[in-house]
Amino acid sequence: MENKVKRNIPDEILTQYDYKPFTTTEIEGMPVQRELPAFKATTGANKLVDSLTDLVKSTVKDGMTISFHHHFREGDYVFNKVMRIIIDNGLKDLTLAPSSLTNVMNDIVVEAIEKGVVTNITSSGMRGSLGDAVSHGALANPVIFRSHGNRARAIETGAIKIDVAFLGVPNADAMGNANGMDGDSAFGSLGYALMDAQYAQTVVLITDTLKPYPNTPASIKQTQVDYVVEVDAVGDPEKIGSGATRFTKDPKELKIAEMVNNVITHSPYFKDGFSFQTGTGGAALAVTRFLRQSMLDNQIKASFALGGITKPTVDLLEEGLVERLMDVQDFDKGAAASMHKNRNQQEIDASWYADAANKGAMVDKLDVVILSALEIDTKFNVNVMSGSDGVIRGAIGGHQDAATAKLTIISAPLVRGRIATVVPDVTTVVTPGESIDVLITEVGIAINPLRQDLMAALSDIPGVPVFTIEELQQMAEKKVGTPKPLEFTDRVVALIEYRDGTIMDVIREVKD
Amino acid sequence: MENKVKRNIPDEILTQYDYKPFTTTEIEGMPVQRELPAFKATTGANKLVDSLTDLVKSTVKDGMTISFHHHFREGDYVFNKVMRIIIDNGLKDLTLAPSSLTNVMNDIVVEAIEKGVVTNITSSGMRGSLGDAVSHGALANPVIFRSHGNRARAIETGAIKIDVAFLGVPNADAMGNANGMDGDSAFGSLGYALMDAQYAQTVVLITDTLKPYPNTPASIKQTQVDYVVEVDAVGDPEKIGSGATRFTKDPKELKIAEMVNNVITHSPYFKDGFSFQTGTGGAALAVTRFLRQSMLDNQIKASFALGGITKPTVDLLEEGLVERLMDVQDFDKGAAASMHKNRNQQEIDASWYADAANKGAMVDKLDVVILSALEIDTKFNVNVMSGSDGVIRGAIGGHQDAATAKLTIISAPLVRGRIATVVPDVTTVVTPGESIDVLITEVGIAINPLRQDLMAALSDIPGVPVFTIEELQQMAEKKVGTPKPLEFTDRVVALIEYRDGTIMDVIREVKD
Repeated sequence: MENKVKRNIPDEILTQYDYKPFTTTEIEGMPVQRELPAFKATTGANKLVDSLTDLVKSTVKDGMTISFHHHFREGDYVFNKVMRIIIDNGLKDLTLAPSSLTNVMNDIVVEAIEKGVVTNITSSGMRGSLGDAVSHGALANPVIFRSHGNRARAIETGAIKIDVAFLGVPNADAMGNANGMDGDSAFGSLGYALMDAQYAQTVVLITDTLKPYPNTPASIKQTQVDYVVEVDAVGDPEKIGSGATRFTKDPKELKIAEMVNNVITHSPYFKDGFSFQTGTGGAALAVTRFLRQSMLDNQIKASFALGGITKPTVDLLEEGLVERLMDVQDFDKGAAASMHKNRNQQEIDASWYADAANKGAMVDKLDVVILSALEIDTKFNVNVMSGSDGVIRGAIGGHQDAATAKLTIISAPLVRGRIATVVPDVTTVVTPGESIDVLITEVGIAINPLRQDLMAALSDIPGVPVFTIEELQQMAEKKVGTPKPLEFTDRVVALIEYRDGTIMDVIREVKD
Repeated sequence: MENKVKRNIPDEILTQYDYKPFTTTEIEGMPVQRELPAFKATTGANKLVDSLTDLVKSTVKDGMTISFHHHFREGDYVFNKVMRIIIDNGLKDLTLAPSSLTNVMNDIVVEAIEKGVVTNITSSGMRGSLGDAVSHGALANPVIFRSHGNRARAIETGAIKIDVAFLGVPNADAMGNANGMDGDSAFGSLGYALMDAQYAQTVVLITDTLKPYPNTPASIKQTQVDYVVEVDAVGDPEKIGSGATRFTKDPKELKIAEMVNNVITHSPYFKDGFSFQTGTGGAALAVTRFLRQSMLDNQIKASFALGGITKPTVDLLEEGLVERLMDVQDFDKGAAASMHKNRNQQEIDASWYADAANKGAMVDKLDVVILSALEIDTKFNVNVMSGSDGVIRGAIGGHQDAATAKLTIISAPLVRGRIATVVPDVTTVVTPGESIDVLITEVGIAINPLRQDLMAALSDIPGVPVFTIEELQQMAEKKVGTPKPLEFTDRVVALIEYRDGTIMDVIREVKD
């Protein structure tokens, strides 16, 4: 059947996964029942175990769901350590349910897939050799891609039942009190991992820095933890925040960033007490810099900045331009280090950040968000998951979640090399057009016709030409021509859920 | 049938409440299944409501369970405000499930009982006119008394299902982010209320200080809150911490405090990194002062101090004699104020503090605790609930929970006026003798025969005579004579649970 964004969802997928098709971005009134796992009470006398190998052997069984977080990003040692033990143990038919998969995890997941160790995956995204393997049908069952908020929802409601969570932490005491702020491999907020710590059947902390008891502040608490294992190193500090703080010098990116800032400052939301999420990457950092100057010039302060936090956002906090940082993840060392000293940098979990099945998440109070796109189509539907060759190389992240903001901006170049970004139809719908308000490219902007209220405010900004999105699509097509249509087999290799757990789209196996 | 502490539990009570009799203080391996209430998702746009009266009318229905916390102690305005609306509304058959009941709540609860508004109560304790009324059979059903840790367990596992929690907070934003640290009526840790915020079906915050969004640090989070109501005042700052910081000048209390300190410092637990809980009251503060000097003299530092925190304990933290304060409740303004500036004063909820149905609570790591007693008998069983006249006038608090410490000291005078404290059999067993290690009175100490290992260390302390508990009981009897046995009817007016939810004792209606 065809869902609201006109994607054809095979009936067998609807049936097998008991999916409802995506119909709306409105979640008010959705019934929620959260489920906690049973466990046996303990005084915790024997939580500290010597051997990670023995612990993995005794806790992980065939068919189980295991989870990890991705806060160490490309500096992660924990995922490979644990997966090596699991593969060498000959375990079968596991479901991998990490908060996301970074490139450093790719090769070992491909190996685990090839050996039948992993037959199911749910993740925010995947790239590189893993995305390539999955797109070519390597995995037994379709990957389920979920946003950060949707993963929180799925864990809370039992759609993802984690049997064992292996959570790397830069410090912990022998009872399991841990935070992400101290230690050689500090990464700041433990936001995504806090879901696993609350809801997994068995919680294993892996750390290289054992602290005296009681270790505080305790983001993960002893009441949630079953085992603590000490290893030599949990991560490579150099790679935990790699590259993220680079400020762009690309003239096209700078032009887009300046236009983004112009759109924000001319919108009705740019007033004292407004809130924003800018994200990471060179262009996002440039937006933050422009926005800072606009806030100073107009004597406007923000109530909060949300999402993955970067050093430039911390600077705004310390300068008094932002009252609070609501921090689910830190993208660089500066942001991670500042958590410890800035009381107004509040750690939040993925549920509080972005969960639709909640009594109000931070994204529900968000005024302005700037998001990226691999593709955006003339219905404003956005793809951040599959490349122009149909191969999986992206992540939903908080894209669907934050797109519920009052002003959702997609910042993207019209074309990338010989590939159009603005297209007639995106390869994969991740975020529905109804939640996107403005597309900003280097040649000008397009306002979603659903947002007639924005037309007046944004139509006469000097240096910001307004087009219809069809016009932008045609400009892109004129530059790069019409690509040959992608060819796929009928086999579904991945499912894209919307943040409420309905089905948004499917990704099919690429035909080479 | 008779349970482990030889208390006769009527069969109809065992059947009606599905109780198992108390058998052991060991909880390792107890199966636990926690239950969360269903709710409807919301973006939280309409949480802030104008009228407390209208909100109470629309949320509370006949037969429901409602809860409150007692962090405002004798300065509480919230309980009376809400109960007045409930009584005036003619509601019937409610279960009252506060974390405890302070004297300022007594009269209105008695009124609610008399009018049939409240027919069930579970609490940590009660005193005054309310204890008197209940002891004389005023309440339709027996009160269930639970320790702070047991209340956490009961809420988590659904033994207490809270329909509506009315939680007074000294600050909150319109979405429900709140803490106990700021505002005119700041009381510090929200420890007990955090259970209600997590598990109640409907959570109502009542505050006199509405903060800009987002309000941090958020001890109670917006994800837990349904409604926020602003009122003129939530508490009387002068009465929130009243009296607790008084340092005793009573020679008998000072003598006991000095002996307590001597027992601690001669025990095998007094070494670097030890932990302790002293509690409140003049004698406890005296113990803290003596202990401070001993720590300085012996160059010993504590890893943590636990429980209700007082200013003298905060002083130890600031002096570097204690590494962490694990803070479920603050007993005075000094302790409440210090939460904001001392990062090492960690707020903990009642579950983390003391819940037996957990993966390790703070009390499981406690070395030394000093507890009080209304009565202690020759089996070391302790009564902190009923007076010598059989009338309810006490609270379990964390008594059963903290008594699991490695060294549990009962500090009590041999007699109070013409009433013996050390008796052949306590009126009501609250904490079983097997978890009590040493009784300390002004004439000397008694060591529990179960703790032969302590005999050597504690037998030759200068100025600390050692007796058997039978000898102490006889000394007390010699001083005050043998009291006339209390007379009770057959009717059970209150149940004493142990911290694991088994039944420890019953309290019967007093016969006048």
